[in-house]
Parts: sequence; structure tokens; C-alpha cells
Amino acid sequence: MAIELYATAGSVEKDLRNHVVIVVDALRATSVMVTATQNGVRFIIPVSEVEEAVDMARQLGNQRVLLCGERQALPIPEFHLSNSPLEYTPEMVAGRVMVMTTTNGTRAILRAKDARSLYLGAFLNAAAVARAARESGENIAIVCAGTNGKFSLDDILCSGAIISRLLELDENQYLDDLARTALTLYDSYKGDLRASLAGCTHVERLRALGLEEDIRFCLQEDVMDAVPRYVDGVIRA
Amino acid sequence: MAIELYATAGSVEKDLRNHVVIVVDALRATSVMVTATQNGVRFIIPVSEVEEAVDMARQLGNQRVLLCGERQALPIPEFHLSNSPLEYTPEMVAGRVMVMTTTNGTRAILRAKDARSLYLGAFLNAAAVARAARESGENIAIVCAGTNGKFSLDDILCSGAIISRLLELDENQYLDDLARTALTLYDSYKGDLRASLAGCTHVERLRALGLEEDIRFCLQEDVMDAVPRYVDGVIRA
Repeated sequence: MAIELYATAGSVEKDLRNHVVIVVDALRATSVMVTATQNGVRFIIPVSEVEEAVDMARQLGNQRVLLCGERQALPIPEFHLSNSPLEYTPEMVAGRVMVMTTTNGTRAILRAKDARSLYLGAFLNAAAVARAARESGENIAIVCAGTNGKFSLDDILCSGAIISRLLELDENQYLDDLARTALTLYDSYKGDLRASLAGCTHVERLRALGLEEDIRFCLQEDVMDAVPRYVDGVIRA
Repeated sequence: MAIELYATAGSVEKDLRNHVVIVVDALRATSVMVTATQNGVRFIIPVSEVEEAVDMARQLGNQRVLLCGERQALPIPEFHLSNSPLEYTPEMVAGRVMVMTTTNGTRAILRAKDARSLYLGAFLNAAAVARAARESGENIAIVCAGTNGKFSLDDILCSGAIISRLLELDENQYLDDLARTALTLYDSYKGDLRASLAGCTHVERLRALGLEEDIRFCLQEDVMDAVPRYVDGVIRA
């Protein structure tokens, strides 16, 4: 039984077909997807480009489709919802379909789509996604979205949280170097995740945009049971 | 002034032409190159493949050429020296030419060869390589060799050591997330680097091969002034 961690989608050089994959984009895409799933969304279609999202919504031709996402952390003009999990209330999403595009998260999901099973993880559902992954198979790869193709500490700490939950389920696991490092960092920082992220590129970008409440929300641990799963182009519980 | 860190050669997506690059393969390729340079080697030619090394030595046609390197941490049949820095004594290398090929280190050097300046760093010359890099330019990228395309904690800790020396020269620098993380890890572990590497993939591989003395040698900090530099296919002081 093994846990591997990749800091970015681009750093995954191996074939993931025999792996259970957890994609993490803690600030904020997978937190949004977990929140929406928890709050009763019917399903989510992740797409790479803004134009694809618009086309997809048109094809679905349904007034109940929500266009969601961001570019460079900003809302997309004409879209219904941004990448803030605070917007994804039960009143807004229950029973609806989301078409979503984000800068980093979508790329990681699409990179990992050949995995044996593919789940979405966040601090919000760390324990729940660990249980689901463990029930699905022996070899787990956590793939972080990263920020613009680079290592992003927020995703690494979230992966550390998930790895700590996996070890609670079964302590006898091989961890690769980055998985070990993420666990060490999480164990050092878990008392104050927000402070430990001060100065990090992605977090400072969100703070500069006035999104401190989003950060606070996304850093809550184990407050949701929803485990979104990607199957054949669609994400649902 | 900025310091960026990349865990593997493959994770460098940007153009490095305006960067001063330090390549790190602490266990053991850059430690070997630093040691050989310190001990008077004339120059080192890094090549990707074993066959290329043999051809290059034949072209150089000189009995003073040393064929050096490893595959999967093992000596290469018919080569003069392995990837153990302990073999690169002044008696062995002074005034000679080395042709060298290693599994991970060479790839990182060749990936970074378009850099504005390219230096080789190790724990052995951490302070010296930091000074040389700082004198060469504002934007520094440290590129780790990694292990088989993956994040390797030995290289990250060595990068943390070099970053700490760079901050001693000038504390006012932007660090990207991985550079910050490497510095945090180095600061936590510097009291006992050997213990902190227990369980890491590459270190355990070397230990299983009986190379504990190599690890001990490579983890010595700031004991050499030599700063090997790569220019036009050749590495020299």
C-alpha cells in the first residue's frame, strides 16, 4: 500500500490507471466542488476553457445550468458564480447542474481522468475522501493543482491533512518523499494553517483580492462528508 | 530579487535565459563535481548516456580522461570511477579530464544549460555557490535533479541550505512557495540532516547499497570553496 504525492499535474510522469487518485486544489476549486456536492448539486462538468463552458451550457440548454469558475482568481464575465465556496449555498445549487472552469484545478482533474477512481479532496472533506480512497484501492496518488504550474503550499498542506487521515485508517503504508514532507509540514502547521500560509504566492493573491473569508472557509477541516467523484466527464457524489 | 526552486528538471516550465541557475543533485552527482573541482580536476564533460560518454572519451583520445558516473546508483562496467565522492581524491583527479554520466543530475544540468549562468551546488559548497550566484545576477532558480523524475528530500534540504546562505547575503528576497518550504525544512532539520532523511527513497537506496559513508560525506556543509560552472558543454571552476 502506497501513497504518492505530486505537486502539480505536470509533474505526473507515470500512468495512473492502476491508481486511486485524489485531486486537490484547496484554494479554491476542489473546496467549491466539495461544498456544492455537500449542498445538493446534481452534477458538475469540469471543462478547460471559458468558451467550452459557454458551449456546454448552451448544449445542455437548461435554465438550471450554472456557469461557474474563475480566471486568475477573478469572476468570469457573464458567469453565474465565481470560485468562492461561500456562493455555493443549498439555495443556489441544490438540484442544479454546474459547468465549471478554473485556472489550475480543471487541468489537474483532466490530467488524472484515466485513474482507476478519481476523487476530489479538500480540507473540508479530508477524512471522508481518505475513507473513500482507501475503500477503492491500494495505491493512492494525490495530485495537486498547484498554482500556474508550480508547487503551492496550500495544496501541499491539504494533502498532508488527507495523508494523516489515510494513516489513521492504516498506518502501514509506503510514502514517497513528497508525501512524507507534506505530512511533516501539516503536523507542524496544523495548529495555525492560516498563519503558516502567510507569504505564499497563491494565498497572498487571494488576500490582495479581498478573499480572506474564502481562505478561512476553505481551511476548515473535516466539516463535510461529501466526496465528489469524477466518472466519464462528470463529477457527482 | 527572487529565488525560485524546482523539485525536478521536468517541472521547470519557464525559460531560464534570464536566470542564474544552481543545479543540485546532493546525493551524489553535484557533490562529486564539487569535490573533483576542489581537488583540481581540469574540467568535466557531462553527457546523458553511457555510450555518449564512451564515444566522448574516445574522441578526446587521452589516457588522462576518466570515465565517471553511475546507473541506478551502481558503478558502470569499464568506467574508472563511480558516483562516490570519496573516490575523487586529488591524487586521482588533479589535472585530469572527467567525462561523467548520471541518472538524474546530468538531465538537470542539460535542462538548465540555456541559463544566463549555471553553477553546481551541494551541501559541501553551499555558502560558496550562494556567493557566486548572487554576484552573477538578481533572479536565481535552483533546479534539483530529483530522483527518477520525482521530488527528493535530500535535494530539497540542500536547496534549503543554499537559500539560507543567499538570505545571509541579502535578506530582502522574494521566495516562491517551494523555496520557502525548503528553507523551513532545512531550518527544522539542520541539527541532524542524516536522521531527517531516514526513510527517504533515494537515501534508503544508497544505504541498501552500503553507501552510508557517501551520505555522511555529502551532508557536510560549507567545507569546500569550489564552485563548478557549466559553460558551453564543459564544467570547470
